[in-house]
Amino acid sequence: MIKVFENPGAAEWSELARRPHIDLTSMLDTVKEVFDAVRSSGDDALRQYTLKYDNVSIDSIAVPDDEIEAAGQYIPDGLKHDIETAIGSLRAMSKAQYQPRVEVEPFDGVRCWYDYKPIDKVGLYVPAGSAPLFSSVLMLAVPASVAGCPEKILCAPPDKDGRINPAILYAAGQSGVNKIFRIGGIQAIAAMTLGTESVPQVYKICGPGNRYVTAAKQFATFFGTAIDMPAGPSELMIVADGEADPSLVAIDFLSQLEHGPDSQSLLVTTSKTLIEDFFKWVDEQIVMLSRREIVKRGLSNCRIIYMEDMQQVIDFANFYAPEHIIFHTENCREHAEAIRNAGSVFVGGRSSVSAGDYISGSNHVLPTGGYAKGFSGLNLQTYMHGVYYQAIDNSGVIELAGHIYSMAHFEGLDGHSMAFTSRL
Amino acid sequence: MIKVFENPGAAEWSELARRPHIDLTSMLDTVKEVFDAVRSSGDDALRQYTLKYDNVSIDSIAVPDDEIEAAGQYIPDGLKHDIETAIGSLRAMSKAQYQPRVEVEPFDGVRCWYDYKPIDKVGLYVPAGSAPLFSSVLMLAVPASVAGCPEKILCAPPDKDGRINPAILYAAGQSGVNKIFRIGGIQAIAAMTLGTESVPQVYKICGPGNRYVTAAKQFATFFGTAIDMPAGPSELMIVADGEADPSLVAIDFLSQLEHGPDSQSLLVTTSKTLIEDFFKWVDEQIVMLSRREIVKRGLSNCRIIYMEDMQQVIDFANFYAPEHIIFHTENCREHAEAIRNAGSVFVGGRSSVSAGDYISGSNHVLPTGGYAKGFSGLNLQTYMHGVYYQAIDNSGVIELAGHIYSMAHFEGLDGHSMAFTSRL
Repeated sequence: MIKVFENPGAAEWSELARRPHIDLTSMLDTVKEVFDAVRSSGDDALRQYTLKYDNVSIDSIAVPDDEIEAAGQYIPDGLKHDIETAIGSLRAMSKAQYQPRVEVEPFDGVRCWYDYKPIDKVGLYVPAGSAPLFSSVLMLAVPASVAGCPEKILCAPPDKDGRINPAILYAAGQSGVNKIFRIGGIQAIAAMTLGTESVPQVYKICGPGNRYVTAAKQFATFFGTAIDMPAGPSELMIVADGEADPSLVAIDFLSQLEHGPDSQSLLVTTSKTLIEDFFKWVDEQIVMLSRREIVKRGLSNCRIIYMEDMQQVIDFANFYAPEHIIFHTENCREHAEAIRNAGSVFVGGRSSVSAGDYISGSNHVLPTGGYAKGFSGLNLQTYMHGVYYQAIDNSGVIELAGHIYSMAHFEGLDGHSMAFTSRL
Repeated sequence: MIKVFENPGAAEWSELARRPHIDLTSMLDTVKEVFDAVRSSGDDALRQYTLKYDNVSIDSIAVPDDEIEAAGQYIPDGLKHDIETAIGSLRAMSKAQYQPRVEVEPFDGVRCWYDYKPIDKVGLYVPAGSAPLFSSVLMLAVPASVAGCPEKILCAPPDKDGRINPAILYAAGQSGVNKIFRIGGIQAIAAMTLGTESVPQVYKICGPGNRYVTAAKQFATFFGTAIDMPAGPSELMIVADGEADPSLVAIDFLSQLEHGPDSQSLLVTTSKTLIEDFFKWVDEQIVMLSRREIVKRGLSNCRIIYMEDMQQVIDFANFYAPEHIIFHTENCREHAEAIRNAGSVFVGGRSSVSAGDYISGSNHVLPTGGYAKGFSGLNLQTYMHGVYYQAIDNSGVIELAGHIYSMAHFEGLDGHSMAFTSRL
């Protein structure tokens, strides 16, 4: 059922690191059509596409403030406490990620500084799941609040009654979202990119979504809107040695597949015995999962790889660049420190991915599909941008004049040279 | 010739902040065609498009190492010293931008840290200009070197003899570029995105370029390749009060237009007298510029705006989000600190934009077109990405179990719940 590979050669690595293929460019025509409609018809287009794609007719696009305020009545007190706790640890991490201004004085009379400013308007997107993904609201909104972004709007698709689940509304209200809109899919991304009568244009759009949302976010960048990262199906790489607990390895492997049939789990291990035990535990545990049908479908994307040497495992991990990686190994700390390309690293068998998904303070909006080679998981800096400043006085002008004269002339920009030497 | 606006109302601001229009999506067909060809024919496609777009037939795509080493023979010693000096100040700023690992312990037994890692493979793009833009090489390569990116490749279009100017080669060699390829335009971006026989695939592509290069970089993101920022024509906003020196204001205004006929200068001032003097100095200085024909064409994109109130000027600046902004004002420090949306801020009349273009330590690869609302100028972090880590011990498992059980169940992910509680 799950394919096992033994000591694969480096030539096979590309194949082993392959994700379920998604050709985003094939969705461009659909995306472009929706963007065009939203640009020309605004809110009317949002209502039409919501009827077409979400099968529901909505009247007001914005969720009224009193509906957000009342949301707490419909969710259990325990969950409210969980949300409060998760906000606390996300706030702690976000605050730690704050970067103070840096300043240098490379020449006498020349001061240069670089300062981080919150982005004025950000748009958060939370997809519809079979359950209300309130945890994604927290992951997106808490860092934006700590960053100090003045305007934080959130879009989420409406359910079949045209409503957004109260847990989503409550989490958004608690974590500082200013305004919520009941729209999803391409039309939500188009609305935040272009602006409509109801939905303000934003400067950056963040959050996970299906392939259409992902293609729409990429398309939004053509209009100068920044995005957090491309998103794709969730994935986990498990590294295990002979000391690993096979029952934990199995449940980690299976639980990752709950997210959807295109999720992927990889087990890479230096122990053949572990593989045998692992299969027993998979059979035993899979029947206990209420989402076992989804999980079973995901197994065809999964791989088990035996490698003799732990250094090779680390190299493969950096090549694969997993969204999540967990080390069920004896020297887990040392192994984890060697990981350069991953969204989130779980160090040791106690460090369950579920903790990072909900509450430990790390973010669960992470680069998938190998994009962890060039992208970061969502963090405070996602919501800030840097601005350079410089102040030069007369002594600085004297210091630099000769250099700038010669460099500008070499590039044929004598106006640049003149602009500087006029200061002498 | 240059339009003057007096006390424009807020309704006019959008029009006043408008940039020369570029519809990047209209270039998608061309971009897609080149990407398809590069994917299927690799180096052959690169040679074909170089012949088609750059009118030159190239044999070897990579510049041989000995050609790079010999480049220093062909440029003046003074320029070598300038380059060395500029590298020094860029290094100083890049080092200051280094972010150490941050760690939090939000619960007993739960440690979470976030660490910045250099991106393994980065691609730098330097456009062809009417002159060799060696300064852009430095701006791109020095932060990548300080970041510690192991593989830094550079693409630049060949001249009519199939060569890259020695100043480009020398600057690249001095600032740590590993490999240089004589290709430009869409084909260069496609090569770095997809990889060919000669050109390695990279994880992030940085650097300015014309509209085709910009559209190609945006398209590259559909393949999971990260980019620095969308680029557009260069622009400057000058803020001046009655104390400003009109001759400096005029030469700053004009020198910005040297970059090309689609460049834009805006003068926003609280002094009507300054406007009168400014025009005199423009007439006097424009004739002295060797690029005066280009500069004259750019004047039609320019605007002069009179506003009574400095606070309004600041608000307009944050709305316009200029690539460069200079304050020729008495309280320049205070005004500059109020700027949130800009690429680079020049504080006071001595602080010429030319200094930031070449040598003061700030970067000249900056967001244009209003993108400074959501993007940062090129900086050390452009070449790094963050990775989350967490280590949980038995006491942490006990602390978190109740929360995760309840949150995972609410989202319908009972495998996530089981994965965690199995650790108890």
